[in-house]
Amino acid sequence: MEIESATQEKAGPLALAWDWVKALPLNFKNIAVNLVRTTKKLGQDDPRRVMHSLKVGLALTLVSLLYYWRPLYNGFGVSGVWAVLTVVVVFEFTVGATLSKGLNRACATLSAGALGCGAHHLARLFGAKGEPIVLGLLVFLLAAASSFTRFIPRIKARYDYGVLIFILTFSLVSVTGYRVDKILELANERLTTIGIGGATCIIVSLCVCPVWAGEDLHKLVASNIEKLASYLEGFGGEYFPDPEDHEGNLMASKGDKALLQGYKSVLNSKNTEESLANFARWEPGHGRFHFRHPWKQYLKIGVLSRQCAYRIDALNGNINSDLQAPMEFRNKIRKPSKKMCSEASKALKALALSIKSMTDPSAAKSHVENSKTAIDELKLVLKAVSLENADLLAIIPIASVASILTEITKCVENIYESVHELSCLAEFKSISVESTVSPEKPQAQLLVLHCGSIKPVLDGDNDHVIITVQVTNEEYTLQTEFSQPPKPGQS
Amino acid sequence: MEIESATQEKAGPLALAWDWVKALPLNFKNIAVNLVRTTKKLGQDDPRRVMHSLKVGLALTLVSLLYYWRPLYNGFGVSGVWAVLTVVVVFEFTVGATLSKGLNRACATLSAGALGCGAHHLARLFGAKGEPIVLGLLVFLLAAASSFTRFIPRIKARYDYGVLIFILTFSLVSVTGYRVDKILELANERLTTIGIGGATCIIVSLCVCPVWAGEDLHKLVASNIEKLASYLEGFGGEYFPDPEDHEGNLMASKGDKALLQGYKSVLNSKNTEESLANFARWEPGHGRFHFRHPWKQYLKIGVLSRQCAYRIDALNGNINSDLQAPMEFRNKIRKPSKKMCSEASKALKALALSIKSMTDPSAAKSHVENSKTAIDELKLVLKAVSLENADLLAIIPIASVASILTEITKCVENIYESVHELSCLAEFKSISVESTVSPEKPQAQLLVLHCGSIKPVLDGDNDHVIITVQVTNEEYTLQTEFSQPPKPGQS
Repeated sequence: MEIESATQEKAGPLALAWDWVKALPLNFKNIAVNLVRTTKKLGQDDPRRVMHSLKVGLALTLVSLLYYWRPLYNGFGVSGVWAVLTVVVVFEFTVGATLSKGLNRACATLSAGALGCGAHHLARLFGAKGEPIVLGLLVFLLAAASSFTRFIPRIKARYDYGVLIFILTFSLVSVTGYRVDKILELANERLTTIGIGGATCIIVSLCVCPVWAGEDLHKLVASNIEKLASYLEGFGGEYFPDPEDHEGNLMASKGDKALLQGYKSVLNSKNTEESLANFARWEPGHGRFHFRHPWKQYLKIGVLSRQCAYRIDALNGNINSDLQAPMEFRNKIRKPSKKMCSEASKALKALALSIKSMTDPSAAKSHVENSKTAIDELKLVLKAVSLENADLLAIIPIASVASILTEITKCVENIYESVHELSCLAEFKSISVESTVSPEKPQAQLLVLHCGSIKPVLDGDNDHVIITVQVTNEEYTLQTEFSQPPKPGQS
Repeated sequence: MEIESATQEKAGPLALAWDWVKALPLNFKNIAVNLVRTTKKLGQDDPRRVMHSLKVGLALTLVSLLYYWRPLYNGFGVSGVWAVLTVVVVFEFTVGATLSKGLNRACATLSAGALGCGAHHLARLFGAKGEPIVLGLLVFLLAAASSFTRFIPRIKARYDYGVLIFILTFSLVSVTGYRVDKILELANERLTTIGIGGATCIIVSLCVCPVWAGEDLHKLVASNIEKLASYLEGFGGEYFPDPEDHEGNLMASKGDKALLQGYKSVLNSKNTEESLANFARWEPGHGRFHFRHPWKQYLKIGVLSRQCAYRIDALNGNINSDLQAPMEFRNKIRKPSKKMCSEASKALKALALSIKSMTDPSAAKSHVENSKTAIDELKLVLKAVSLENADLLAIIPIASVASILTEITKCVENIYESVHELSCLAEFKSISVESTVSPEKPQAQLLVLHCGSIKPVLDGDNDHVIITVQVTNEEYTLQTEFSQPPKPGQS
């Protein structure tokens, strides 16, 4: 930097300016190319963004009619300004956010308008000289008190915009009231135009390709769980490669590398989830979600997913560690560790699918149980390992991996519990299981799984039975493998 | 829930209503008591909140003078409304946020106003019938395009409010222009009042007890590092209790429990840090921070602190683990592990202090080196441990703790590096070290540490030397322990 600036100083300001002018067309071209590229990418990543922009334009053009169309203009006059203002500040990306802002604005305007009129009449009682002083004092007190309430976390989260508009309207009404005589008429005109603006926003937002915050939250939580599953799947192959299939694994590991980074976005998902849940609460029933859908439960699942992601981040440190455990020891614990990874990953995938399709998460239960069995198997292997001539130092990294994997398995179980709770609260569809078992067990032919009704007990033997899982109400068909057929007597 | 509602249904709606009325005074009392308690707590936690509320009241009362004071009202008329509106929406908690919003609003209003006037004149060319159509089309296109730019992450972070005001002003000017003839006069009046409102906000925000986003960021980053240090300090005592001092430790561990939870707020600090850094960029020089203070570097330190916090969260899972390692083995690795904890903790504390006092972080260097030596010591102990008759299964949890602690030590070193980088970028004060060493080494008596100038080489022996560290420019005095006196010949 210093050397560069030194040579620039030598070159003189004129030459510098000329260089700058010469570089201008190229710079502009670069900026334009970058802009087009970014725009294209943004639009391709989420086409709803383009739609949103067009919707804002549409809503604004609609309220402009208050000006352009003579009969409307005669009715509202310059108050149409407030409709334009309302549309610009209230229109948000999701329906929930728009509704939240619109309703906040409506309630705040109404209450503050009424209070402002009251303040105006109260101040009149103090005579011509006292009026501005009383008004000023009232504005000061109310603004200070309302500003303070914005620090209360609950109000900040849900009614922040409402309080802002409350201060705004109260100040405007009480202050303008001092100069304008027909204050009620003015208030009426403004209220109507603000109402028109707000209604336009809500109607356009609801009717033209609506973007639901609730649906986004639902998808986000499911995709976060899926990312964790992908990591665990990739980690198993990366850290415990099959000795016979080394080349194939190297080919696959390139794709895995991308999977191994996906979990990082889960680490910082808290704010997005919380704001989506906040907006989702304002939304009416839509699609598969009714009005009082248990959005809070998604936040609980989110917290547990992040906990799991923190563990995975610690695990990720071990992949790149220079201390690698000796192959011999690794081979010994490969089987149970890989099983733990793959079963935890399968459980998470089943949970993500269960959330996505809004069906009972019982399919994940068996994988959770299997991962627990894998822990026991790992313990057995570890007990049997001969430690004579072993180097504890070399074993430590892999012991640490095993320990963190065990922790992750516990996290997965917690996630399963909370998804199960969600399925009860949101009344996920129960699924019927049709199992193609051997003829001597005809009682397992058809089985309807209810919420929390089946707890398959695995006692270790591995008769593999392929069970076809069908969703009764709609046409989701899953295929899953149980280590043992669930016994209907326990349902 | 169901049982409750069933009994309620039996009781009849009248009785229910009567119950509700009877409960009203109590409910109101509860709400009021809660409100007072929350308010008191919010005010005590951060008294600047109370000050902020009063400042908002003050700024609003000041711009109300545009209405109350006859000479001003004669000048501006009803346009004073825009000053009130500007104050309400622009005034924010920190100076940076207020400046960012104020400048965004000013630039956006100016540019959109000019563009709006241009659009108005352009539309005039199309005759009486064409004018509203052209205007509507222009509003639609500009609103859609601008709304889309709000999805570009860089614009979203810094200029979101500006783009909003740009859409607002352009729509208002071009739409109102259709009905109002003296559009330039109107634009002029509004611009002036918006300018007055914005200036009032900025002046009040800057002059009355200013709250600096930069200072908040600075303190937040330092306190986050301190929280990590507290955890490590507490963890050492909790997981490796001294056998002789068991009772005293139980007493202490109650206080430790609170310390052990502090790190959790670090996990989700990303958004706060980013928005503070964003606002800090707009702030002029203040106190110890000049205008172009390297705020971005704080974000880097924040990322590394969070990485360390994720590891600590994984470590925290081990404290509550039911699988506890046998005492015998634990005693063997207690010394190096505790040293690793305490040195990493001391290093983090020294780094936090270095950031707080804006002095060279060299004092932390020796602790980082010591924690590295502790890793080597741990390795030696582990190599020497006899594994015959040992139960690998029981050793695994503690091996995992040792492995995660090693990872944390690496994180601490990274944090040290980035704080060091910050100290170079922000030109932290170098410190003079006056060491009270034995008389046979007089060359170590006074030593001025420059940025990156000292790299004490520790070769293992532990002559403990207490070194008094003094800040040259101001009166900070630290005391720190080096394992070996730094050799001035290497500075």
